[in-house]
Amino acid sequence: MGEFDLIARYFTRPARRSPLGVGDDCALLQPRAGMQLAVSTDLLLEGRHFLSTVDPGRLGHKALAVNLSDLAACGAEPLAFTLSLALPRIDQAWLAAFSQGLWALADAHGCELVGGDTTRGPLAINIAVFGEVPAGAALLRSGARAGDDLWVSGTLGDARLALDAFRGSVSLPQDVFDAARLRLEVPQPRVALGLALRGIATSAIDVSDGLLGDLGHILAQSGVGARVDAVEAASLLAAAKAGLALATDRIEDLVFAGGDDYELAFTAPASARSAVRSASARCGTPVTRIGVIEAQAGLRVVDAAGHVIPRRFAGFDHFGA
Amino acid sequence: MGEFDLIARYFTRPARRSPLGVGDDCALLQPRAGMQLAVSTDLLLEGRHFLSTVDPGRLGHKALAVNLSDLAACGAEPLAFTLSLALPRIDQAWLAAFSQGLWALADAHGCELVGGDTTRGPLAINIAVFGEVPAGAALLRSGARAGDDLWVSGTLGDARLALDAFRGSVSLPQDVFDAARLRLEVPQPRVALGLALRGIATSAIDVSDGLLGDLGHILAQSGVGARVDAVEAASLLAAAKAGLALATDRIEDLVFAGGDDYELAFTAPASARSAVRSASARCGTPVTRIGVIEAQAGLRVVDAAGHVIPRRFAGFDHFGA
Repeated sequence: MGEFDLIARYFTRPARRSPLGVGDDCALLQPRAGMQLAVSTDLLLEGRHFLSTVDPGRLGHKALAVNLSDLAACGAEPLAFTLSLALPRIDQAWLAAFSQGLWALADAHGCELVGGDTTRGPLAINIAVFGEVPAGAALLRSGARAGDDLWVSGTLGDARLALDAFRGSVSLPQDVFDAARLRLEVPQPRVALGLALRGIATSAIDVSDGLLGDLGHILAQSGVGARVDAVEAASLLAAAKAGLALATDRIEDLVFAGGDDYELAFTAPASARSAVRSASARCGTPVTRIGVIEAQAGLRVVDAAGHVIPRRFAGFDHFGA
Repeated sequence: MGEFDLIARYFTRPARRSPLGVGDDCALLQPRAGMQLAVSTDLLLEGRHFLSTVDPGRLGHKALAVNLSDLAACGAEPLAFTLSLALPRIDQAWLAAFSQGLWALADAHGCELVGGDTTRGPLAINIAVFGEVPAGAALLRSGARAGDDLWVSGTLGDARLALDAFRGSVSLPQDVFDAARLRLEVPQPRVALGLALRGIATSAIDVSDGLLGDLGHILAQSGVGARVDAVEAASLLAAAKAGLALATDRIEDLVFAGGDDYELAFTAPASARSAVRSASARCGTPVTRIGVIEAQAGLRVVDAAGHVIPRRFAGFDHFGA
């Protein structure tokens, strides 16, 4: 049995939803009538997007999760994905654990692996993910309107807190670290919320590079500005809620520019507040209203008294620090 | 302007065929009614799939070409692609040349870039490509039947000859080297031939890892064997046709196991010979009949007298040599 066959063993299963899966030059997908196919892709490199010491099962989970998060932000239902994998060596224990983490999340979302590519090289993972969304129903970055509420799902900043702890720049109590580490290593894509928000949200984006940076994309593409409540936003750091004492500036940095959150930021008319809360309750994903969309361009973070905080919150940039 | 904006400048164009292109969490594709979406992906790494000295424009071409070749092998019409790019640094001259090579081939096939991801890291290129094919019409690896003719498009082995010259293991006259180098660096995906073979070919595969290895996939998935005429096959090395003197064994190694050819190997009933030749003529892609599919499992290479050549031809393996 050749090395390729060893790899194939971990990543080949019969296709169930797709007309043709792994094993030919192409896979075949068949979106249902009236559906568009949503497509996204993410490339993860060791040392840049994950630590070399990460548990391979969690890495398998996260590699797919960050892609499913893009489908969630469009309100698309996961259908299938491809996996390109560069491996420095063939390590069966690693492959078994990685594929197990990948399959568990894929199965939870009914998303099947239909193809891929494998080669030897520095550890790199590229997934392209495919989902279905009714024509015209996708949540876009361009639909926010002045007067809309600004919402965020779940919690923000804890993934970055865990990363800072790994890097030694902060010391955390074990229970706080364990919880934050789960947010960093096992993010839960908000697929159910994205589906529930179709027809309610006017725009959405997944928060992967830091809230303010990602929110900036909505503002730019919608031609609007926003006012964000710093106190509401700061409440989104789970570690702070759990009692970790941190300076306000530090909390704001984590929440506004932490990165790796994989939550949804979205806008909806004020008239849709109960619909948003009901969607949130239905899928068990908490949401918090943290601001409002304004006609005036720019992003204003305001304190409890409504004064603009002049401080600059650095965005997350894979080509930056 | 941030570094990301610099990169985006080279890879952002308005979508024309797709409902939504670059710039949101997902792109949106809309296959026409009755069409399936063919999907394939290839990961190219510096030093493994291309030399670090390769011209970036040619690299841009090849990165897309190897993916279009997979669509060709399925008889799918190119529609769109995503590009994931890891770059060690932001080099504008490199990006300009790379994107120019990429766009030229994309435009030639009406295939538009709809999304991607960029990060800093060792040079790596992952493309996922999407094409349309009428439901049930895709050319698969599994349809070869005993008695079918075995065909190959274009020429084989010259890309590997150029690679051997780069590596210094063979010395070539300049004109032979130049021609072989074009085959290595600027492969032409046989998209038109793949489309023309729909309804004619019973199976197809793109020859990327060496003819015999790739043909082996057709045989395995179709549950058949094949007899390949060594003399016909050896005639497929363009360099030999052009007068390069090489030992027969060496020619056979190049043709049978060279790799990086991006031609189509396909099967069709003997009754379809004129249809195959007519398809070949219509799209200006020569084809050569090099063997026959047999019920007996296994792959037999035979000499001019019809005797099986007992020699083993090594397949190309990205995890091998």
